[in-house]
Amino acid sequence: MESLSVIKRIAILGSTGSVGTNALKVIDSLGPQYQIIALSAHSKAELLAEQARRYNPEFIAITNSDYAEELRYFIGDLDVEILVGPDSLIKIAELQQVDVVLTAVVGAAGLPAVLAAANKGKRLAIANKEPLVIAGELLRKEIEKNGGVILPVDSEHSAIFQAMQSGCKEQVNKIILTASGGPFRRTNLRDIQNVTLEQALAHPVWEMGPKITIDSATMMNKAFEIIEAHWLFDMPVEKIEVLIHPESIVHSIVEFVDGSMIAQLGEPDMCIPIQYALTYPQRVAGIAKPLRLEEIGTLTFEKPNHQTFRALSLAYDVVRTGGTTPVVFNAANEAAVEEFLAGRIKFVNIVEIIEDCLNRHNVKPAASLEDVLDADAWARREVTELACNV
Amino acid sequence: MESLSVIKRIAILGSTGSVGTNALKVIDSLGPQYQIIALSAHSKAELLAEQARRYNPEFIAITNSDYAEELRYFIGDLDVEILVGPDSLIKIAELQQVDVVLTAVVGAAGLPAVLAAANKGKRLAIANKEPLVIAGELLRKEIEKNGGVILPVDSEHSAIFQAMQSGCKEQVNKIILTASGGPFRRTNLRDIQNVTLEQALAHPVWEMGPKITIDSATMMNKAFEIIEAHWLFDMPVEKIEVLIHPESIVHSIVEFVDGSMIAQLGEPDMCIPIQYALTYPQRVAGIAKPLRLEEIGTLTFEKPNHQTFRALSLAYDVVRTGGTTPVVFNAANEAAVEEFLAGRIKFVNIVEIIEDCLNRHNVKPAASLEDVLDADAWARREVTELACNV
Repeated sequence: MESLSVIKRIAILGSTGSVGTNALKVIDSLGPQYQIIALSAHSKAELLAEQARRYNPEFIAITNSDYAEELRYFIGDLDVEILVGPDSLIKIAELQQVDVVLTAVVGAAGLPAVLAAANKGKRLAIANKEPLVIAGELLRKEIEKNGGVILPVDSEHSAIFQAMQSGCKEQVNKIILTASGGPFRRTNLRDIQNVTLEQALAHPVWEMGPKITIDSATMMNKAFEIIEAHWLFDMPVEKIEVLIHPESIVHSIVEFVDGSMIAQLGEPDMCIPIQYALTYPQRVAGIAKPLRLEEIGTLTFEKPNHQTFRALSLAYDVVRTGGTTPVVFNAANEAAVEEFLAGRIKFVNIVEIIEDCLNRHNVKPAASLEDVLDADAWARREVTELACNV
Repeated sequence: MESLSVIKRIAILGSTGSVGTNALKVIDSLGPQYQIIALSAHSKAELLAEQARRYNPEFIAITNSDYAEELRYFIGDLDVEILVGPDSLIKIAELQQVDVVLTAVVGAAGLPAVLAAANKGKRLAIANKEPLVIAGELLRKEIEKNGGVILPVDSEHSAIFQAMQSGCKEQVNKIILTASGGPFRRTNLRDIQNVTLEQALAHPVWEMGPKITIDSATMMNKAFEIIEAHWLFDMPVEKIEVLIHPESIVHSIVEFVDGSMIAQLGEPDMCIPIQYALTYPQRVAGIAKPLRLEEIGTLTFEKPNHQTFRALSLAYDVVRTGGTTPVVFNAANEAAVEEFLAGRIKFVNIVEIIEDCLNRHNVKPAASLEDVLDADAWARREVTELACNV
């Protein structure tokens, strides 16, 4: 059960990434009521050591053991317990003294720790998509069984979560996920055939790593967000829509049954969703730059082109089919984007390969972590093969 | 104390006006759980009789006694108690069998009934500005003392009320009232001198009566809404801002201390705020046309021109001065708009006269209905005099 204590004791899985460093800035501003118990990094030993020196956690974890020695070197005489290897995330997630587990670990690597935190009834603040996309059903069950709570950290789902406070789940008519549309929102089906790697890496609003930038260009990120919203809010996919909003100011919208729409707006700044996931149900003064709509001037909205962005339509099918299908959807995308970034396939091949892979998949129930990891591995092998034959 | 019963028994003060007729449409769609106990009209006897025939209330009231005979003629053999004269509104508002009093009476005429309903701890659904503008302090005290609740019915304050569900009062940084800006939002201080009656009556979005259309052109309506928001949400005026939004789709916005903004959006349709005031805290399927942002396409926002729209600046001073000042502000406006509609003063004179009137007013505490009505009468006399000397 989630603790009602005023003090919030936090573990950050992936503290050296973009979400992790922003989370630490937010926690800095929140004052001594918010305490860092544990931090983890994959390989950025020096930064992790700096963070440990500043935030004085009880535990730090480095999941890539190759960097353990470097970490020990930087940490010097600091009084902190060092954990090494992928399983160290699980240990952190289960710590009795931790109330909130903020997970910002890239890819599926964070999933076992997320399930472990859910199993212990912790507050889960989820910044990465994979746990909900590939194991949404498992995770939901684990949370419900153990009285935990899951709070979204990305801007769209946080917006929905905030907007939903103005009603309740049963009163929601529609969830409208906004999307910048990426660099190709106006590109037609023919022109998208010739998109280069450079064009695909130039995102109009957010500066992000290459994987997520490509996901934004294919709109696979939005496809995943449809699946996330389905599990986070226990909402049938038929009630989830995508709306192109290039300015990325309205972060998402909830339409209630009475026809009233509630939207959350803000500067594109992840500090707001991070902070809300930590302070909810409270709101406290934060470090986010306030939005001045009179300076923005104009907000625009348009329907997404489902022909150009086939990924969106696939998302609905993937949820309806269920079982291991979302796992394959995610893993096939990761593998296909790698192939694209390595120059081995064209931009349009990414989603084509994912669709081929889904068609070849022998769907099974995703009843355990093992089922999930099996399907994940199968999809990656399949994509490597499919990519050779493009 | 507000009743928790599932059945809601409703009195509509002003059922033959635009809000009243829309409220009846909404109640039609809500089903038998919402019952009409009483209806009132000022002079539209035939329509009131039709409504009585259809909704079968226990009481109907006609406040202009000149129309009582006409009403009796139309009502025929219907089993309904007929009340006559201005005080009949008070009787209706106090009825023990009424849970919700929806007031949509034009001008200050509804105030005694509103105070009576507040005194009995009813749910007050307020569609007209005057009770809060001229007697906000009195009304708030009455509501707090008697455990009632007040719910806004106009689109802006309903939007704020809905948005505030995503946090609490103490967490509000700013209330942003949106305004269409009326026909003169781009007009400069020089050109506004020559505005004609015809130009002032052409509102770009809402179709309304002449008085409220002129209030929209001077932005006095928004000035009043600042005062309303101050009393409705117990919010210092410094935290209330006006933002021009010509499309009238975002009905208002709440900015919380964490930098998050929550907005309510919808088609310009008063059915949503009417319904929410009746069903709150529930939301149920309604008759409002759903908003399609992809069809609207573009939403724009700009700062209001406080030079052209002096009314806005006056509102802040009026609240800060307090006492009988808001009463004078409202009454002087009513009288000045009458002078303008009668062709006796120019458009720019409206706000000039109001300001003169405020400057000449000897401010007193607004501790009773009598104080309010005295100041109201004084201001009307004063404007008549000032208008002669323009």
